[in-house]
Amino acid sequence: MTQPEQHGTTDSITDVRGLRVGHARVAGDGALSGTTVVLAPAGGAVAAVDVRGGGPGTRETDALDPRNVVQRIDAVVLTGGSAYGLESAAGVMAWLEERHRGVRVGPDPSHVVPVVPAACVFDLGRGGDFTARPGPATGRAAVEAADASGDHARVETGAVGAGTGAVVGGLRGGVGTASTVLESGITVGALVVVNAVGSAVDPATGALYGSYGSYGSHGGPGSHGSSFDGGLPSFPDPAVHQAAQRRLAEAREAAAPPPLNTTLAVVATDAVLTRAQAQKVAGTAHDGIARALRPVHLMNDGDTVFTLATGARELPEGPGPLALNEILAAGAELVTRAIVRAVLAAPGGLRGPGGDFPSYSELYGGPHAAN
Amino acid sequence: MTQPEQHGTTDSITDVRGLRVGHARVAGDGALSGTTVVLAPAGGAVAAVDVRGGGPGTRETDALDPRNVVQRIDAVVLTGGSAYGLESAAGVMAWLEERHRGVRVGPDPSHVVPVVPAACVFDLGRGGDFTARPGPATGRAAVEAADASGDHARVETGAVGAGTGAVVGGLRGGVGTASTVLESGITVGALVVVNAVGSAVDPATGALYGSYGSYGSHGGPGSHGSSFDGGLPSFPDPAVHQAAQRRLAEAREAAAPPPLNTTLAVVATDAVLTRAQAQKVAGTAHDGIARALRPVHLMNDGDTVFTLATGARELPEGPGPLALNEILAAGAELVTRAIVRAVLAAPGGLRGPGGDFPSYSELYGGPHAAN
Repeated sequence: MTQPEQHGTTDSITDVRGLRVGHARVAGDGALSGTTVVLAPAGGAVAAVDVRGGGPGTRETDALDPRNVVQRIDAVVLTGGSAYGLESAAGVMAWLEERHRGVRVGPDPSHVVPVVPAACVFDLGRGGDFTARPGPATGRAAVEAADASGDHARVETGAVGAGTGAVVGGLRGGVGTASTVLESGITVGALVVVNAVGSAVDPATGALYGSYGSYGSHGGPGSHGSSFDGGLPSFPDPAVHQAAQRRLAEAREAAAPPPLNTTLAVVATDAVLTRAQAQKVAGTAHDGIARALRPVHLMNDGDTVFTLATGARELPEGPGPLALNEILAAGAELVTRAIVRAVLAAPGGLRGPGGDFPSYSELYGGPHAAN
Repeated sequence: MTQPEQHGTTDSITDVRGLRVGHARVAGDGALSGTTVVLAPAGGAVAAVDVRGGGPGTRETDALDPRNVVQRIDAVVLTGGSAYGLESAAGVMAWLEERHRGVRVGPDPSHVVPVVPAACVFDLGRGGDFTARPGPATGRAAVEAADASGDHARVETGAVGAGTGAVVGGLRGGVGTASTVLESGITVGALVVVNAVGSAVDPATGALYGSYGSYGSHGGPGSHGSSFDGGLPSFPDPAVHQAAQRRLAEAREAAAPPPLNTTLAVVATDAVLTRAQAQKVAGTAHDGIARALRPVHLMNDGDTVFTLATGARELPEGPGPLALNEILAAGAELVTRAIVRAVLAAPGGLRGPGGDFPSYSELYGGPHAAN
């Protein structure tokens, strides 16, 4: 774990072979929400979840308890629309049922129940219309987009899918992703939707929290245009930071901060994991959220991490249960990096009836403290 | 939570009125271990625990599940000696029984069972003798020291108590503490024992991870000699850092890193908390470990956080369940700060039959990246 990290080919969760990502957006004026689906290859993936926020909105997470019966799942749904948006999973279920994918429950191959775990972020009213939420059609569009995207496809980031209306500490949030190939050859990837009540930006310096401490061995060389190129951190010019602070203060006066917030993540790997190991990966991945956002895991955060393990590569022999360590550490680091990339990927600010949320790039002109 | 943080009077866990801390050390050549007791005031405190490491060693933690019967406890034990050291809790139980403190289980006031939750760090053989471990006598000595210390006493830090033989990422670890007074007047304090497999030091810069992002509002002015004085971070001189890296590499060659490691913490407050709220505080406090140490929560970490709530002050009215947020955020920040202080408090390096572990100050000449 002290070797420089090797990013995956696309530096995204789709570097885990067989996983596909699709986004869909709620149509219409007044809508700023959407759904993101991570689709497993045929046969599904071992899955787990760890919920650490105090205000979670989830569906089918109890089925993922390693003590319970379902062994593999076909898709995970991340969605806007708060608890209403969980309905988008119904569209993913229907799509899977049509393909006879799911838990077989009868003699006919069509007798399946797809278990589609889902978690939501709060973005109600972000586009002006409190009732514009993802539903089954949004979920279906997202899973169709995932299916159509092909293997190792580039993952769209920023204000897409479940991140369409996302905000973080007064700034625009969104979707981010990152991946790494471990020395063992195992690939680990992460995808996040950042919509947190805490801040991604250190108010003292203007640097992104997630960039701190990522200059060295864990962040690795930024060979794919990432913001982690090694060396000492640089910080925004104090004048730029002061101007940014003023702008943010104005924006906050214009709109009260949203009451409920969440960071969602999927950590995926091609390793062979038991469901209990997958659960541990989901738990330690929350460390990556803690490093990128302050504070987190509050009563109004619904922070939830899913794990998907496709089971293509055995863990390295020798270290026994400790073989999991490199995946645990990588999962946390990737979640941090994916959050940084989500914040940097946010396009221009979000200004409308739902509030005024500048983007980081708008305020600071690009990445800082990690070059 | 955006106000500058106000440190407690002693900037230690004993700023929470009624809590006392005592350390004891295992006597004899070859011994480098000990026990730390956090003693609640008469009548006990609401308590909870959250275990996040993959290799925990604990006692009486199931009793703290908010669904279970025990309502308050009198003391928490942090101890060296791995699972053997849990026996130190027996000495604390005996001391409490003599004072009729514990869960009343019979008609006579002497009929009590003290519930003494405990967690251990791995330091077996650190002093050369694998069998030199804390036992009941060590626990009794620690609780007696706590009792004798008086209210708001200064807490000894560094290589004391359960931190006597602690190491962290090749450096000497130990005990650290910190506290804050929130705007509501509620006091929150933390005490940690740092003995982690991960590193407290960013290998790219030589700065302490826990100092990153603590320059501003969450770290607050360093009015009590802490290492958080605001402003932009400073980093160790590159030549100093390179020399430190060389020294650490030599030390690591001399001794294999220990196989099992742990960061233990107690987060305490004078707030009125339910047991479920206390459990949430313990969970979110793990974020503070994640920010100060990388990686953490691995299979060979036994990371465990206890919460103690003495119940002297009601949570602020108004925000409902969100009133807990400021304690959640403060708990995480204080754990980070206590870890930084533990590493800085380590005296000269630990060199002996159990290994070669320089201290941070020895390598870097004092705190860095946080002034």
